[in-house]
Amino acid sequence: MVGYAFMGAAHSQGWRTAGRVFDLPRRPVLAVLCGRDGAAARAAAERHGWAAVETDWRVLVARDDIDLVDICTPGDSHAEIAVAALAAGKHVLCEKPLANSVAEAETMTRAAEAAYGRGQLAMTGFNYRRVPAVALARRMIADGRLGTLRHVRATYLQDWLADPAFPLTWRLRREHAGSGALGDLGAHIVDLAQHLAGEPLAGVSALTETFVRRRPLPGGPSRGLAAVSASGTGAVTVDDAAVFTGRFTSGALASFEATRYATGRKNALRIELNGERGSLAFDLERLNELWFHDATAPGAEAGFRRILVTEPEHPYLDAWWPPGHGLGYEHTFVHQARDLVHAIAAGTRPDPSFADGLQVQRVLAAVEESAEKNSVYTPVAS
Amino acid sequence: MVGYAFMGAAHSQGWRTAGRVFDLPRRPVLAVLCGRDGAAARAAAERHGWAAVETDWRVLVARDDIDLVDICTPGDSHAEIAVAALAAGKHVLCEKPLANSVAEAETMTRAAEAAYGRGQLAMTGFNYRRVPAVALARRMIADGRLGTLRHVRATYLQDWLADPAFPLTWRLRREHAGSGALGDLGAHIVDLAQHLAGEPLAGVSALTETFVRRRPLPGGPSRGLAAVSASGTGAVTVDDAAVFTGRFTSGALASFEATRYATGRKNALRIELNGERGSLAFDLERLNELWFHDATAPGAEAGFRRILVTEPEHPYLDAWWPPGHGLGYEHTFVHQARDLVHAIAAGTRPDPSFADGLQVQRVLAAVEESAEKNSVYTPVAS
Amino acid sequence: MVGYAFMGAAHSQGWRTAGRVFDLPRRPVLAVLCGRDGAAARAAAERHGWAAVETDWRVLVARDDIDLVDICTPGDSHAEIAVAALAAGKHVLCEKPLANSVAEAETMTRAAEAAYGRGQLAMTGFNYRRVPAVALARRMIADGRLGTLRHVRATYLQDWLADPAFPLTWRLRREHAGSGALGDLGAHIVDLAQHLAGEPLAGVSALTETFVRRRPLPGGPSRGLAAVSASGTGAVTVDDAAVFTGRFTSGALASFEATRYATGRKNALRIELNGERGSLAFDLERLNELWFHDATAPGAEAGFRRILVTEPEHPYLDAWWPPGHGLGYEHTFVHQARDLVHAIAAGTRPDPSFADGLQVQRVLAAVEESAEKNSVYTPVAS
Amino acid sequence: MVGYAFMGAAHSQGWRTAGRVFDLPRRPVLAVLCGRDGAAARAAAERHGWAAVETDWRVLVARDDIDLVDICTPGDSHAEIAVAALAAGKHVLCEKPLANSVAEAETMTRAAEAAYGRGQLAMTGFNYRRVPAVALARRMIADGRLGTLRHVRATYLQDWLADPAFPLTWRLRREHAGSGALGDLGAHIVDLAQHLAGEPLAGVSALTETFVRRRPLPGGPSRGLAAVSASGTGAVTVDDAAVFTGRFTSGALASFEATRYATGRKNALRIELNGERGSLAFDLERLNELWFHDATAPGAEAGFRRILVTEPEHPYLDAWWPPGHGLGYEHTFVHQARDLVHAIAAGTRPDPSFADGLQVQRVLAAVEESAEKNSVYTPVAS
Repeated sequence: MVGYAFMGAAHSQGWRTAGRVFDLPRRPVLAVLCGRDGAAARAAAERHGWAAVETDWRVLVARDDIDLVDICTPGDSHAEIAVAALAAGKHVLCEKPLANSVAEAETMTRAAEAAYGRGQLAMTGFNYRRVPAVALARRMIADGRLGTLRHVRATYLQDWLADPAFPLTWRLRREHAGSGALGDLGAHIVDLAQHLAGEPLAGVSALTETFVRRRPLPGGPSRGLAAVSASGTGAVTVDDAAVFTGRFTSGALASFEATRYATGRKNALRIELNGERGSLAFDLERLNELWFHDATAPGAEAGFRRILVTEPEHPYLDAWWPPGHGLGYEHTFVHQARDLVHAIAAGTRPDPSFADGLQVQRVLAAVEESAEKNSVYTPVAS
Repeated sequence: MVGYAFMGAAHSQGWRTAGRVFDLPRRPVLAVLCGRDGAAARAAAERHGWAAVETDWRVLVARDDIDLVDICTPGDSHAEIAVAALAAGKHVLCEKPLANSVAEAETMTRAAEAAYGRGQLAMTGFNYRRVPAVALARRMIADGRLGTLRHVRATYLQDWLADPAFPLTWRLRREHAGSGALGDLGAHIVDLAQHLAGEPLAGVSALTETFVRRRPLPGGPSRGLAAVSASGTGAVTVDDAAVFTGRFTSGALASFEATRYATGRKNALRIELNGERGSLAFDLERLNELWFHDATAPGAEAGFRRILVTEPEHPYLDAWWPPGHGLGYEHTFVHQARDLVHAIAAGTRPDPSFADGLQVQRVLAAVEESAEKNSVYTPVAS
Repeated sequence: MVGYAFMGAAHSQGWRTAGRVFDLPRRPVLAVLCGRDGAAARAAAERHGWAAVETDWRVLVARDDIDLVDICTPGDSHAEIAVAALAAGKHVLCEKPLANSVAEAETMTRAAEAAYGRGQLAMTGFNYRRVPAVALARRMIADGRLGTLRHVRATYLQDWLADPAFPLTWRLRREHAGSGALGDLGAHIVDLAQHLAGEPLAGVSALTETFVRRRPLPGGPSRGLAAVSASGTGAVTVDDAAVFTGRFTSGALASFEATRYATGRKNALRIELNGERGSLAFDLERLNELWFHDATAPGAEAGFRRILVTEPEHPYLDAWWPPGHGLGYEHTFVHQARDLVHAIAAGTRPDPSFADGLQVQRVLAAVEESAEKNSVYTPVAS
Repeated sequence: MVGYAFMGAAHSQGWRTAGRVFDLPRRPVLAVLCGRDGAAARAAAERHGWAAVETDWRVLVARDDIDLVDICTPGDSHAEIAVAALAAGKHVLCEKPLANSVAEAETMTRAAEAAYGRGQLAMTGFNYRRVPAVALARRMIADGRLGTLRHVRATYLQDWLADPAFPLTWRLRREHAGSGALGDLGAHIVDLAQHLAGEPLAGVSALTETFVRRRPLPGGPSRGLAAVSASGTGAVTVDDAAVFTGRFTSGALASFEATRYATGRKNALRIELNGERGSLAFDLERLNELWFHDATAPGAEAGFRRILVTEPEHPYLDAWWPPGHGLGYEHTFVHQARDLVHAIAAGTRPDPSFADGLQVQRVLAAVEESAEKNSVYTPVAS
């Protein structure tokens, strides 16, 4: 695994737990943690249960005892590491957004396609597909419970930038993060919207905004933040928020909002889909619940029902706890590890693939292009 | 009062009740109900408590015993009746949307301005401003509880057209209704967004859609629906749904959605505003509640709080029931009647005025223009 | 109508509106308002739309032009007025609790039975039965949607006494109010529980408490509060709260709580019923909603659904507004007036009758008896 | 660890994860899993990550390489194992309810007291105290945010017995489980109520019921279910549900309900406390949320606020994920492991101790005694 911050901890928990809860064809072994700062990497490895440490990812991918490389670094390094790991014969799991540019994502996808021919798998880490309620929603939609789709509305609302005194981290610099709320949060809702709808977006119209344009530098040595004023502040070079609308290929309408300024909303990834026969709604802040309206029920008894997604019939749940004993955020990484191990054992294409990650990247690029071109409706490349 | 359908019933309830609940400087008298079909109008007058009936609104506005004309007809007749009533020296209350075109609304606004010089008032019927929770939200925002505004997101979701077998009513024909979901539902959320934000929208980017393009004709004689096919269906000539984004003059971002295809959502007018110091959220389906997040509270205790807007300190509530005994939809019309009677007695400008109605009309026109021009960002005329 | 305070205003609104919204066989006329203080009664009559005033209820019940007497006074005068009105040949609507003692309620019920033989009706004002969501719940239970009943849990939580500085009103004195939270709030939940369950309680076990035993006297002349200390405070002689459990005749278990000390709960009448085939839940603070769990649905899709009780198929709703346009507290009185007028026209027994009011009184008496006898299980007299 | 079923899996997850997430003075090692069926125990050890297996708990407690014995067996074996483990010099964690009788719990508590003198700790596994929202509630109450306590109402509602065809498991037999819903679910809410209130119950009045008295035998060899009829069914010898009320020593009132027949309620442990200055409410089905009403806030802005308990200022949360990324059920066991390791290192009394477990047992005994004695109010022994 490359990277050991927030995502590294979450992925470690996933790898460590998957084989303890699920019956897996192969049990994952936490072999090597990789980070540039050796002491910090060693501490993280000790904490999270990795057997060894490397400080150069090139060495990591060259090791014979590694089957899979899990990339948890900022987006600017994804392409190089992933392509090298695939070239070295490893399976790859790469965090989202797949890359900081469409061009990088295309390179990665080509490498993944070639590697698949050699029996290697490459998965993009859209972990929210593996919230049981989301997986249940996908199953119900695939079963036709919504009928012809009319609307998808999705928001991903956080508020950690609402305070203008919050410091300038790497996530606020384009050279590292690629984009701001759009790539960090928007990527998730674009992926979920298309995954649940079962069809891609055809085009989008967008507004983006950077509300607070300079922020104080973080304490301590900053990571490559050269563009610093003498005053101790630096420029925010990514979007703070993106609002956009779109059309699916079927003609259904979509609306999206990704922001870090929605005061009081901590992790409000909300998505609702309305179809001719029914509707589904989900909120990540209450991730054990899926709301379903069945429009084919008698009118006097119809209503959105709160399905507590903790029954053994629900996706992933037969391996966990009794009904009503809810799961949390990190379980998505356990499920991701489980599904990837199964896919590797079976040789099936991982879902979502790098191609899926690339397609999301193309939607984000169309969003940025529309925002630059006065919000004009911009088709998604394919 | 002109018109006696759904809106006529609601307005009648408002006029009949306002003086029974509130201390008013003058008690409204339900004098004359006007409708083209005499028998039907007489039945409605008897039902709703109007003392007399007219079948020609021109006769109504000429009567000496009438002080105020309340216009509850479809939008295509608003301008003619309102201008005539103002010319005849009456106060006017006109349902929203103010008119079917900006030009009509401008004419009406000029007439209202002239009439105001003669002591006559003209109010636009944006009744949802008078939901106590909305009025409380406005008060809190005016008091600075949200600080610098960042986001407004508003939806008005209904589902009565989700069934493609629903018949072609006057609301689905441009010549009568002006527009579809946009004018009917979008007008409300545009007005509320600007009213609560305390500032106008600067521009918008929009997508509109008509999902079901032909519908069965309603049973019985249809009202001017000439464009009928031999097959017993007619063309829907208005939008089924509109999704749009925008910028406020302060730079805050907005997103809007108005639709009649949100299966399971019956009257989901939802609006949320996020500011640097706090957030507010409202849902018309739970109209006695206002949700407030105070970001200046200690972090460990912060959260959206559900204010049950039924306390005597809350707007309009000292005249109603004890705490926790909620109000309903029609109370907005009682409050509207109350406020208009007070404004007439005091000679103050009504709020919202025809100018406010015109401004909303201009936003809707910008939405339609943007939708026609490939969603390009379109400034709101001023 | 006798009495013109809170209940008087609510009943007036009911009588004034019922004939405007519903098709009634006879339209109610608001003839005479009765109150001991002539000036105050005249002001109330003018406000609420009553044509005349009396200051002595004995004169009222003797008037020939009155068909129905509506009793909205404190409980200590119910029996005398109701019996006299029935003797004078009037129909009677009497607020709950029916009386301050079982003996009084028995007298009233005998008088009602006798009067029914003469074609007169006597109804007890359990208005919450006529919340549309409650009426829908009753219909669904009668249709067998819950199957064998296992549990009923009901609370009626208010908080207006949580502040020890709140003054000593008539509701806090036994000689006027009969009991405290028990009769005021507990009567409602006992009635609803039995009404919805479709069966009576067999016995109860209870705890009651008076948390604050002395309170400041209200400003101004007090109404018969002789037991006043020199310090300006008086004794609270009723219960502040009552918690009790019970068994229905079928063996289902019940739990109840009535209190005026549930800080932050304003009008939280909540009731949930669990049966072998399903469950229903209702909360008066969200009175347009009924929650239904259908245990016969497939497990993976089961969940409590929020039925927005605003559809034309729902009880009382075809006369009101479009779906999603909610009703409020006072509509229960409109429905009560409607149903009583229909019952009078048809000559059918009113529901709930005085006998139903008496039965609730017997449950309350058993609660008080149990609380006095160390909570021992106490059968309900029949 | 003794036992490896549901609780064993949850405890294993707790031990395995605590040292990966929290800074601990000593890292737990999963040494030996103990179960009577060797093959099954070996499979469970392999699954959950235990290094070795024993089939006799007596051998386990005699091993030198074990510091702590974690008891996850049914209640009938708790006392014997715990006393032996303490005698052997081990620390002990014992699942709730502490024992199947007060006498056993007293023996255990005496053993624990003696062992504490030798530096050994004994904790009762009331894991729900360690839900962050519950821990936050306790902190707020200790800080005086509720003021004088008036009411506690708590339910623990499940529905897995609502179907009469559900088989007769060991949990439905008194000889193994001690009691039914009362010990399994009621123990949790009694502990939480007292823990949060910060004071014990003085007495209780109770009703219990067994709705379905015979159930089909489970397939396969049954565990000591001798009392089987020829028809393939066996007698349920524990309560299906318990409803009870009580008084705290301060005079606050309490109401409780524990049932396995609340159709549609899967794990609805709900507790609300009302005090003079505020209220708190919690629902285990939404375990990342705590609802707080601050009655000292201005009336116009007061309301129950939903605190999303995922901030670094909240208990346990600084070691987990960013705000809004919720935890699940099993995290309570991670926190339990963390706190026990800290207590062992520091030599402080564990919280909750065996004495706390005994006190809950005494409340449950008073409930059973009251239920047997016609619900008479029964003091809790001390």
